[in-house]
Amino acid sequence: MRKGLLMVVSGPSGTGKGTVCSELLRETPELAYSISATTRAPREGEVDGKNYYFLTKERFEKIIAEGGFLEYANVYGNYYGTPLAKIEERRAAGQDILLEIDIQGALNVMEKCPDGLFVFLLPPSIEELERRLRGRGSETEESLARRMGSARKEIAIGKRYQYVVVNDTVAHAVATIKEIITAEHCRVDRNQHLFEELERE
Amino acid sequence: MRKGLLMVVSGPSGTGKGTVCSELLRETPELAYSISATTRAPREGEVDGKNYYFLTKERFEKIIAEGGFLEYANVYGNYYGTPLAKIEERRAAGQDILLEIDIQGALNVMEKCPDGLFVFLLPPSIEELERRLRGRGSETEESLARRMGSARKEIAIGKRYQYVVVNDTVAHAVATIKEIITAEHCRVDRNQHLFEELERE
Repeated sequence: MRKGLLMVVSGPSGTGKGTVCSELLRETPELAYSISATTRAPREGEVDGKNYYFLTKERFEKIIAEGGFLEYANVYGNYYGTPLAKIEERRAAGQDILLEIDIQGALNVMEKCPDGLFVFLLPPSIEELERRLRGRGSETEESLARRMGSARKEIAIGKRYQYVVVNDTVAHAVATIKEIITAEHCRVDRNQHLFEELERE
Repeated sequence: MRKGLLMVVSGPSGTGKGTVCSELLRETPELAYSISATTRAPREGEVDGKNYYFLTKERFEKIIAEGGFLEYANVYGNYYGTPLAKIEERRAAGQDILLEIDIQGALNVMEKCPDGLFVFLLPPSIEELERRLRGRGSETEESLARRMGSARKEIAIGKRYQYVVVNDTVAHAVATIKEIITAEHCRVDRNQHLFEELERE
């Protein structure tokens, strides 16, 4: 059984990683989102192990203490986190996992999961990034300037990733990431079982 | 300017690397075969620098002495070889180069060109490999047994490559190698210029 990939997709805010990841997931049935754990109460219709892993505060804090989250945050009194053990469990069963995460989060994942695949989404240009952020209509000039400044710093961090994909169009970025997934499935170090099978024959 | 890739495709004899490589080349206009150097005389219509680099014996032996061939052989008194400098020249101009080579040759290329991409073609199964070799009709039982024995040894060498592609059908193998090429073009270490451009903006 081939171990599933952990595809970590991130990029500066405004690069469109949300849109790219949801389209990627829609087109790639063998890929599944990583499932977060949370201490907030389930909402109507939410299923444990599908929408979230619903944990008690005590259980969550125990996992924090054990270093068991790829990342976690406390948002208005509720914890949210990405449990490494659950990801590894699904990968061991052959499932490819997609993790959409901000850049700081991705750097933590690099430490905890060095066999992850790190894809950095770039805007086609700085002007285009600014245009996209403006297009949201929710930014003041001040917050826009701050976001652009941090985007420039974040872009430099992209050099620590393995792959860079320019999000010129969503369709092109999605197609490229799918090709990266195929290529990674062909990596010799992920296919020792193929050699073993041929040697056994 | 992004440096071109050196795609090295090899595999045990009978795996079909010749067919896969020529179809790959046909479908991928941005990829070009590596051009061999030879000391044999040009045949009618052969063009220097296109079909071969035609060299004198003295020139060829000088390049051998300088370690300038990825591989070379003397066939019935004529030298044939793959000149590293010419490949690097074309790669520097952005050209992706395809090198179809046997496994022993590929191991030499790994030493001389560690930034090459090494793709190992596998037969779908040992039975299928035997069936294909028999299909050639040119093997005696003895030479077949010898070939199968060396194929088994050669398959183990595949573990030293970066990518493994099962040649179940030519179309599938070609499509997969094309995806590997796209993915490799997205490697961060091949795209420093993208970051530099964004930083300059």
